Amino acid sequence: MHTYEHGGNVYDEDAPDGERWLDFSANICPSGIPESVLDAIEQHIPDLENYPDPNARKLKKAIALEYDIPEAEIVPGNGATELLYLFFHVVRPASVLLVAPSFSEYERAARACGADIEYYGLDAEEGFKIDFKDLAEDMEDEACLVLGNPNNPTGNIYTAEELHPLIDIAEERGTWLLIDESFLDFREDASLYTVKDMVAEHSHLIVIQSLTKFYAIPGLRLGFAVMPTALADEMCFGKDPWNVNLLAQVAGAAALADKEYQTSSKELIAREGAFLYRELSSIDNIRVMVPTVNFILIDLHDTDMPAESFANAMKSYGILVRDCSNFPGLDRWHIRVAVKRRTDNLKLIAAMKEVLA
Amino acid sequence: MHTYEHGGNVYDEDAPDGERWLDFSANICPSGIPESVLDAIEQHIPDLENYPDPNARKLKKAIALEYDIPEAEIVPGNGATELLYLFFHVVRPASVLLVAPSFSEYERAARACGADIEYYGLDAEEGFKIDFKDLAEDMEDEACLVLGNPNNPTGNIYTAEELHPLIDIAEERGTWLLIDESFLDFREDASLYTVKDMVAEHSHLIVIQSLTKFYAIPGLRLGFAVMPTALADEMCFGKDPWNVNLLAQVAGAAALADKEYQTSSKELIAREGAFLYRELSSIDNIRVMVPTVNFILIDLHDTDMPAESFANAMKSYGILVRDCSNFPGLDRWHIRVAVKRRTDNLKLIAAMKEVLA
Repeated sequence: MHTYEHGGNVYDEDAPDGERWLDFSANICPSGIPESVLDAIEQHIPDLENYPDPNARKLKKAIALEYDIPEAEIVPGNGATELLYLFFHVVRPASVLLVAPSFSEYERAARACGADIEYYGLDAEEGFKIDFKDLAEDMEDEACLVLGNPNNPTGNIYTAEELHPLIDIAEERGTWLLIDESFLDFREDASLYTVKDMVAEHSHLIVIQSLTKFYAIPGLRLGFAVMPTALADEMCFGKDPWNVNLLAQVAGAAALADKEYQTSSKELIAREGAFLYRELSSIDNIRVMVPTVNFILIDLHDTDMPAESFANAMKSYGILVRDCSNFPGLDRWHIRVAVKRRTDNLKLIAAMKEVLA
Repeated sequence: MHTYEHGGNVYDEDAPDGERWLDFSANICPSGIPESVLDAIEQHIPDLENYPDPNARKLKKAIALEYDIPEAEIVPGNGATELLYLFFHVVRPASVLLVAPSFSEYERAARACGADIEYYGLDAEEGFKIDFKDLAEDMEDEACLVLGNPNNPTGNIYTAEELHPLIDIAEERGTWLLIDESFLDFREDASLYTVKDMVAEHSHLIVIQSLTKFYAIPGLRLGFAVMPTALADEMCFGKDPWNVNLLAQVAGAAALADKEYQTSSKELIAREGAFLYRELSSIDNIRVMVPTVNFILIDLHDTDMPAESFANAMKSYGILVRDCSNFPGLDRWHIRVAVKRRTDNLKLIAAMKEVLA
């Protein structure tokens, strides 16, 4: 069985020359932590003597306002990943269909709760696109399907309109459909893609979303899920009442109110994603997926340099990239890089050119 | 069914005159957050752009050193309560024996995972003391027993020697025995009571411990469990890899290294616990349990003032106490107060005297 290593693990070894790693392996917003969030955190450090609000009232209100969904459908989490595990622990679907490649915690969380895993393999030659009619057929015997939208690590993204038929089929059959929108915040046009508003009318639809990628606070842990109110009650009963720490609650409320950060970060990602894609595409022998959000999947096959060797070579430049060999559905030739600021993107390009020369 | 309200919820209503609540309802160390912990938190705020170490290496090392247990037996948690839920989600014992009264999350977590609950009722007239021979008999048909040592809210505490026979019986029968030592850090002589060192020799013994009560950081969430290594592996597989946030990890390591805070806080609790007990005992018509750590259970029956009315009356003095009516095994005449600093304890005594006059 493959391992579940992730990007963003800056703890395994030290960067060269006592520097910090330039980390392209984790998909974190390059704008950095918003000033408004830093202020909120610093201001509330003395409050750590109190328990967090077990009802996360201010945070829930801020989420409801930002995404235009009822508070009763919201379950805040200690990161989106906690909510994945909680869903599987509470609902315990016997069989789970996953798309390959996709975020490896879907499999790990489902397995941890005893589910049988089936994979719907996406074809690299088809650009890893989903054929929804085909997927709906594969879903027939499954208790649950998990989809990332956009999908990590391919970046493929589907409009709400494309997803509607699948959601309706899942509803008819009583199949749990869990959609992970953790990267949607990076797009100006997220409203074309989100299906959070469909939860109210569907008893088996759950949408989860991280708040730590776009607001650059993965160390603090924060996410939420939108789900039918009956399931939300069950999930809240199945978890520790203080799962979201006090600083994450105030940071989340501050972040969601920071319209300036949101606008400028989306602009930055659109601009730098296009720049990085263009520059990467000019490197010989690598195939580059078009970015839809803040990361880019790259196929190194024609360079004859496997992902592991490439990632190791990049380390000598102080740069971490994500070796994607352990994603089911990918092979030892795939890497993923995050979109960062211009100066960092230029360092990545320069190092890649030297390593692949 | 009773509700699962807790102390320390300062969010439900505002204190009078725009003041902060003087919170005797949560059992948090009155020394406040150690300076060493505040420094560690402030220093690491910029690091929140990184994920937490999924292996919590520095934190685990600090826990192993402080409690003299192997790192492989340690599972750090987002608070001790998360680990309770994780244990029940992963192990799923069919039936759980609880002592009444005890911390209500034991029941909530076990029920959330579908366990049948049995209660071993403690007798108020016997000072809520456990008869271990009798308890061992009651345990016979159960898959799991949970014990707080010291027990919240009674404060009763048992030596490791008193617990040994029960631990051996549980081991023989394959009954899971979960012991919660969350308040043991408050005592200088914790080594007389802890059974963490017995985990290595017992395949069904788990000890959980909060790190937020003694170090006054409940808002940050931090705890750990000591368990057989096979179960530790299973628990780690059953949880989100980033469950302990980055600030909690550095705060925990700093706290466990702060010997000065530990010594002075234990002295403070011993001194103020004795003072508060003496002063409370001088109030007419209330019965006061002898404190063993940082909280005191009080029986108001002879005052004819139920706990709910008493707690409400105290609110007008800006003071929160824990109405214990919702603890199974207690009734509407019980309250619990934390041990705080002298000036605060004097305010509590003065207000109680007026309310009960």
